[in-house]
Amino acid sequence: MKKANAAIIIIGNEILSGRTQDVNVVSLSKWLNDLGVSLNEVRIIPDIEENIVKSVNELRKKFKYVFTTGGIGPTHDDITSKSISKAFNLKYGYHKEAYKILKKYYRKREFNEGRRKMAMLPEKASLITNPSSAAPGFIVKNVFCLPGVPSILNSMLGGLKNKIVGGKKILSHTLTLRTVESEISVALSKVQEKYKSNVEIGSYPFFRLGKIGVSIVIRSTEKNLIKLCYKDIKNLVEKKNIKIINKD
Amino acid sequence: MKKANAAIIIIGNEILSGRTQDVNVVSLSKWLNDLGVSLNEVRIIPDIEENIVKSVNELRKKFKYVFTTGGIGPTHDDITSKSISKAFNLKYGYHKEAYKILKKYYRKREFNEGRRKMAMLPEKASLITNPSSAAPGFIVKNVFCLPGVPSILNSMLGGLKNKIVGGKKILSHTLTLRTVESEISVALSKVQEKYKSNVEIGSYPFFRLGKIGVSIVIRSTEKNLIKLCYKDIKNLVEKKNIKIINKD
Repeated sequence: MKKANAAIIIIGNEILSGRTQDVNVVSLSKWLNDLGVSLNEVRIIPDIEENIVKSVNELRKKFKYVFTTGGIGPTHDDITSKSISKAFNLKYGYHKEAYKILKKYYRKREFNEGRRKMAMLPEKASLITNPSSAAPGFIVKNVFCLPGVPSILNSMLGGLKNKIVGGKKILSHTLTLRTVESEISVALSKVQEKYKSNVEIGSYPFFRLGKIGVSIVIRSTEKNLIKLCYKDIKNLVEKKNIKIINKD
Repeated sequence: MKKANAAIIIIGNEILSGRTQDVNVVSLSKWLNDLGVSLNEVRIIPDIEENIVKSVNELRKKFKYVFTTGGIGPTHDDITSKSISKAFNLKYGYHKEAYKILKKYYRKREFNEGRRKMAMLPEKASLITNPSSAAPGFIVKNVFCLPGVPSILNSMLGGLKNKIVGGKKILSHTLTLRTVESEISVALSKVQEKYKSNVEIGSYPFFRLGKIGVSIVIRSTEKNLIKLCYKDIKNLVEKKNIKIINKD
């Protein structure tokens, strides 16, 4: 069985051009962590069919779940649905259920060509309900296609939970120190060596309010291992007379 | 000759776990755009040697420039230098010049094992000066390795400009409209079709201060084409009685 892992493909020239700051990776990653799924790779690619097809086909074989964000709107640069159809070799056309939803939603306004385009999906895709603006996301096998607008994406995650089979929840514990990385790096690497296969220790320097510090993040699915590892790190920190600023 | 394009590889479990919001893509992308280099792909990958080696070797063949961010500090999870050595089949060891810089910087404090680790680089790498905190970045062929901390990364870009040979600068013009995408999508796709190979038109819906709107972004290296394309879009917008909120 595949590990409970995932990749995200961000489809969008606006992210690559630096015009728009992506925020979907953080929210999707946290949501996946809570479900016991670890995010193992992210790709940001342009609105080019060939690139989308290639990335989707590569990553859907490699990971249990693939999420795409962006490119499911009504304009010419929204080519995710068409590209996913191609990646899976499925017919691309009006999806009955999606068409019905959109027709109903737009009944008082014009159900024009642009809006009808959002009902064009890969054949037999399952829909992801969109409580914000009707136009659905969709699922083909292990690929979940979501919109790029963060508020709409987030509104759609609630309805997706039961489609994800996660593993054990990934827990984390952070220890924030008033020190620099090089003061603790050797001792810390020995602790990482000790818990090699089951605990991941990250070390992140920061500059906050004019002061430097380091956050040590301990991540694992095993609560007791986090505790043991935490104790070892606390010991080494105290031996060096380093101040602990925060724990969480 | 290769096109003036680039890819970024973000090396960092902290980005994948959702703990840290990446902001380096936006700043690197804007900096590259100003130099006439377009960012064509980004990958976010974990601190795993095999993944780094594979991504670097794939992308350095595909793009003119590859930038990596993260993983060049003193701790056990900083494995970029070692991985880049492996990707290029170069010896990994103390780099004379880097060692000298770091030794001088730390002369009043202890030049300990962690700090010495930051002088371990691929053989013959050229250095990227770090005006913030001494530990240099480095270049091997077309791969530029930068730190992950945004303030330090940004301080290092100034000294890099003369190493990048860009093409024509990518210009952009934005037209912000009080409308929804589906009102303009069909007409807009005809304009995109007309300027197909030389202008890229992006359409981005937004919700701001409780109001909806669409930003149309016209990008090209050709100023006159942007002007012509802008005129066409302005005409179609006026024909539909759509309000232009902003131009820039």
